[in-house]
Amino acid sequence: MTPTITGFTWVPQFARGFVRDIRARWAFEEAGQAYAVTLIDGDYVKSQTHRRFQPFGQIPTYRDDQVEIFESGAIVMYICERANVLTPADPAARARAVQWLIAALNSVEPFVMALAINDIFEADRDWSKKRHDKVVEDLNGRLKDLSDALGGRATLDGGDFTFGDLMMVSVLGGLRGTGVLDSFPDLAAYVARGEQRPAHVKAMADHLASFTDAVAA
Amino acid sequence: MTPTITGFTWVPQFARGFVRDIRARWAFEEAGQAYAVTLIDGDYVKSQTHRRFQPFGQIPTYRDDQVEIFESGAIVMYICERANVLTPADPAARARAVQWLIAALNSVEPFVMALAINDIFEADRDWSKKRHDKVVEDLNGRLKDLSDALGGRATLDGGDFTFGDLMMVSVLGGLRGTGVLDSFPDLAAYVARGEQRPAHVKAMADHLASFTDAVAA
Repeated sequence: MTPTITGFTWVPQFARGFVRDIRARWAFEEAGQAYAVTLIDGDYVKSQTHRRFQPFGQIPTYRDDQVEIFESGAIVMYICERANVLTPADPAARARAVQWLIAALNSVEPFVMALAINDIFEADRDWSKKRHDKVVEDLNGRLKDLSDALGGRATLDGGDFTFGDLMMVSVLGGLRGTGVLDSFPDLAAYVARGEQRPAHVKAMADHLASFTDAVAA
Repeated sequence: MTPTITGFTWVPQFARGFVRDIRARWAFEEAGQAYAVTLIDGDYVKSQTHRRFQPFGQIPTYRDDQVEIFESGAIVMYICERANVLTPADPAARARAVQWLIAALNSVEPFVMALAINDIFEADRDWSKKRHDKVVEDLNGRLKDLSDALGGRATLDGGDFTFGDLMMVSVLGGLRGTGVLDSFPDLAAYVARGEQRPAHVKAMADHLASFTDAVAA
């Protein structure tokens, strides 16, 4: 079977470009690997049927003849390693690519998500406005550290773009529209370079085109 | 050289048993791999010297003759795969072990950390008490999903204990003392089984003994 992932039939306008099927799509495009997408809706994603494959009621999931997994990080690593793209041959460099992929997911994304949760999903809570500055302060701390680590280089490891960069660019892309990266022009440029890769451009176009009312919206 | 990780010379009593060098120690013990620990202090961990190896000013870092990495998730995977322990031979099962390791770090730990941040590190903020119930509600949602996924089995994948289980047990162990797992006896039992593994018992004892005033405390 063609490797198949899940995506959403529809999400609100503000979420388009941010849903995590984009990460799997990007990895497939980097690999030059044909893939299929099963679009599911907001009710189905929370159903017990879907939770058998994704316990947290989310997308994407990934499936081929051998493997069935969830977690965008695991999916991206699996697609890239299987196709031997964005995957360093040297074992030490491969370990560092894994390190950066996990750093994106565990040391950076929780801070990016905290801002979205506070300012969007908890905007109506009575702590949201008071807490905003602290959330931004913590996020800026991480971004400063990351900027220092990048140290003016083109990629996190200083060499070829890896699946670790793919994940970090995607996580930082979650800040699109917030203005937060305006204070970190080097990180903004790093994200822009990643997003300008032809594989990302194609993946994002397909992601945005997948929503059933994309033309009308 | 002997593989070497970093740990802290000292942390407050409430943090003992929770610092992430425990994860690397546990993996080393599962592998039967001798290792060394360089203990560093709270000033050094934030220094530019240390940040060259760990950009976010944290521990653990890992170093051997070939590899130098940070991120506990990457370190655990590297130690286990190198020693071929807790690592499924079947590629599909290995992909699922990666999936669970990343699920622990990206889909569960941010909710565990949110509780610790709100109730400990932000306890003096004027939103902390108001926000507590929402933080617990979100965490409980994830734990309910995870409990359903475990489905009464001994391990997340239903087979041998993998590095994915090691990480999930360690992440859930972060709830020790909060009472949150009292509502999820199956998850509490899963954590207890993991923590009773001889490798974890040894790793935790060494972790606790490492603090310079551990005897006096």
